Amino acid sequence: MTSKRGWRISSLFGGSSEKKGNNKMANVNRQWILVKRPVGDIKPGDLELQENPMPVPGDGQALVRNIYLSLDPTNRIWMSDMDQYMPPVEVGDVMRGGTLGVVEVSNSDAVQVGDIVLGGMGWEDYFVAPGEMLNALPKDTGIPLTGFLSGIGMTGLTAYFGLLDIGQPKEGETLVVSAAAGAVGSIVGQIGKIKGCHVVGIAGSDDKCAWITKDLGFDAAINYKTENVLERLGTLCPNGIDIYFENVGGEILDAVLTHLNKFARVPLCGLISQYNSTDPVPGPYMFQNFLMKSALLKGFIVVDYLDRWQEGLMELGTWHAEGKLQYKVDVHQGLENAPEVVKKLFTGDHDGKLLIQISPEP
Amino acid sequence: MTSKRGWRISSLFGGSSEKKGNNKMANVNRQWILVKRPVGDIKPGDLELQENPMPVPGDGQALVRNIYLSLDPTNRIWMSDMDQYMPPVEVGDVMRGGTLGVVEVSNSDAVQVGDIVLGGMGWEDYFVAPGEMLNALPKDTGIPLTGFLSGIGMTGLTAYFGLLDIGQPKEGETLVVSAAAGAVGSIVGQIGKIKGCHVVGIAGSDDKCAWITKDLGFDAAINYKTENVLERLGTLCPNGIDIYFENVGGEILDAVLTHLNKFARVPLCGLISQYNSTDPVPGPYMFQNFLMKSALLKGFIVVDYLDRWQEGLMELGTWHAEGKLQYKVDVHQGLENAPEVVKKLFTGDHDGKLLIQISPEP
Repeated sequence: MTSKRGWRISSLFGGSSEKKGNNKMANVNRQWILVKRPVGDIKPGDLELQENPMPVPGDGQALVRNIYLSLDPTNRIWMSDMDQYMPPVEVGDVMRGGTLGVVEVSNSDAVQVGDIVLGGMGWEDYFVAPGEMLNALPKDTGIPLTGFLSGIGMTGLTAYFGLLDIGQPKEGETLVVSAAAGAVGSIVGQIGKIKGCHVVGIAGSDDKCAWITKDLGFDAAINYKTENVLERLGTLCPNGIDIYFENVGGEILDAVLTHLNKFARVPLCGLISQYNSTDPVPGPYMFQNFLMKSALLKGFIVVDYLDRWQEGLMELGTWHAEGKLQYKVDVHQGLENAPEVVKKLFTGDHDGKLLIQISPEP
Repeated sequence: MTSKRGWRISSLFGGSSEKKGNNKMANVNRQWILVKRPVGDIKPGDLELQENPMPVPGDGQALVRNIYLSLDPTNRIWMSDMDQYMPPVEVGDVMRGGTLGVVEVSNSDAVQVGDIVLGGMGWEDYFVAPGEMLNALPKDTGIPLTGFLSGIGMTGLTAYFGLLDIGQPKEGETLVVSAAAGAVGSIVGQIGKIKGCHVVGIAGSDDKCAWITKDLGFDAAINYKTENVLERLGTLCPNGIDIYFENVGGEILDAVLTHLNKFARVPLCGLISQYNSTDPVPGPYMFQNFLMKSALLKGFIVVDYLDRWQEGLMELGTWHAEGKLQYKVDVHQGLENAPEVVKKLFTGDHDGKLLIQISPEP
């Protein structure tokens, strides 16, 4: 399994200094297994919670107890066998998902017992991995552990690289963000404000719209469930749209493309509106505007920027410490609830970065 | 009218040395007027050939007799009022199109009588423009005048900048070109070969496929009218597709996107399959692959690169002189036939860059 667990993060932070040891372990490792690929929405029976024996770390390996599991729209892609940027989860395998955990046994010099580590990639209580595949987090940062799975983690980095590297924001430009109250979108808009953009967010409730404008400093927000997005964009973006950070696809994408400026940039981060579709989904009807406006579209995932993560985390951490960057987490309890909770991503019925707490923080 | 005629080309070539003079002129200027916007295909009555008085050049202006008119897919876009990169042609105005002509009267120091100039932008016998808006071509290059409206002109530059600037071809990569026997596509493939790519062209007849492989050196060709493009691409691009130079849109775009490699680049030059559509046209069903493959799409028109035209023309001219770059022109006689001839672009019933000869070469 180890080779499927994910990517090697070249030591982003310095190592810790605690020594090895053996903690008492539970006897059972619960694992969510993909037993069949969902058709449309995720349904009961697509995933099955199995109780398996505890894994035993070999030479150079460590045993990690998962504390938090990150739930992300891409989880739904991994459940399918569509052509995608990583191999799909195979039927019969543990469902894939990023975790933060604590080292309970270490046979590796790379990590010590008690280290808090990223690098887990399964919906499960425990896992074993080579010590070098784990990434010990810095201690005493003042950042809560959940921050490392949200604003000061891969979520924040996704916003950071997509907006800055692809979007290339310039002062005074207009930036539109969809899923703007979401884990990524909320960070995108705040970085846009740091860079001096006019920022308009599109979100799915009045509460979310109020949060991003009043608390996060977005210039304006559109509730796509109650407002005409096409018309409102025209009003709120009187100088047109220079950057569109895309998370959703569908009609919202078409509305934005209609208002696109010459030489606009569209970082393509997600297309969540179509992940559960059982029929082929057409691209935007305004696709031609990429031609008419000499516009750029660029898909990406955060691992494309692996060699720059440290740079990104440092800057995100600095902005957070300066009070310029907020994030919100929505923590649900219990590994057993993961398949139900992950569905909230597709209904918008959550408030901040969606996490499952699997076990207590140390 | 002059302000609508187009763009200023910063002197691409040195001026000529002939002196001013007055030639005998005809008394009538035939002009194709857009009298109503076509719905779907261009139909009789959409354009009307009017006989108007000869224009008279004022101070600093020149009178130019058009010799060749360039017919291009974008002409159809200009006839519509869709959102586009230049203002549409207004109903009642002369139809827009690039021309090559000869100066017959000059009241400007910028051009001399007898100069062959680019810069005309109308379907008409004659026009008047400020001398600085005209671009005198170099003499005694050995390049036929039609070359300056095709391979060693804007057509060649379109291929050059789209492929090199957006496509970023690297030796050994796979390049696919649609409308590959067309004016732009045929140049794209040849530049791809110069850059060491594996080049596959998609064209609409066996004769066109034979021309691009046997005469132009493409590695392979697909006749989209008789072959399964999706399957053939799989066979002919065993390492996937790194660059797709897009001229057509529709099903061919979807077939290519299916075979896209990670970090692929798609220069978006045209979408000719949809220019005559009367219904909204959906974007590609495989749009999601821009996300899944971290791929780049970038629309452009050649005027985006105006400040680099001289560089491009020099390199195209050099390749042509070295025998590495061929182009083909399909010249039809008579301004009166322009509306019928332009339709050939949408049926593929032409053989090379489509031109109308309006008057004799000097």
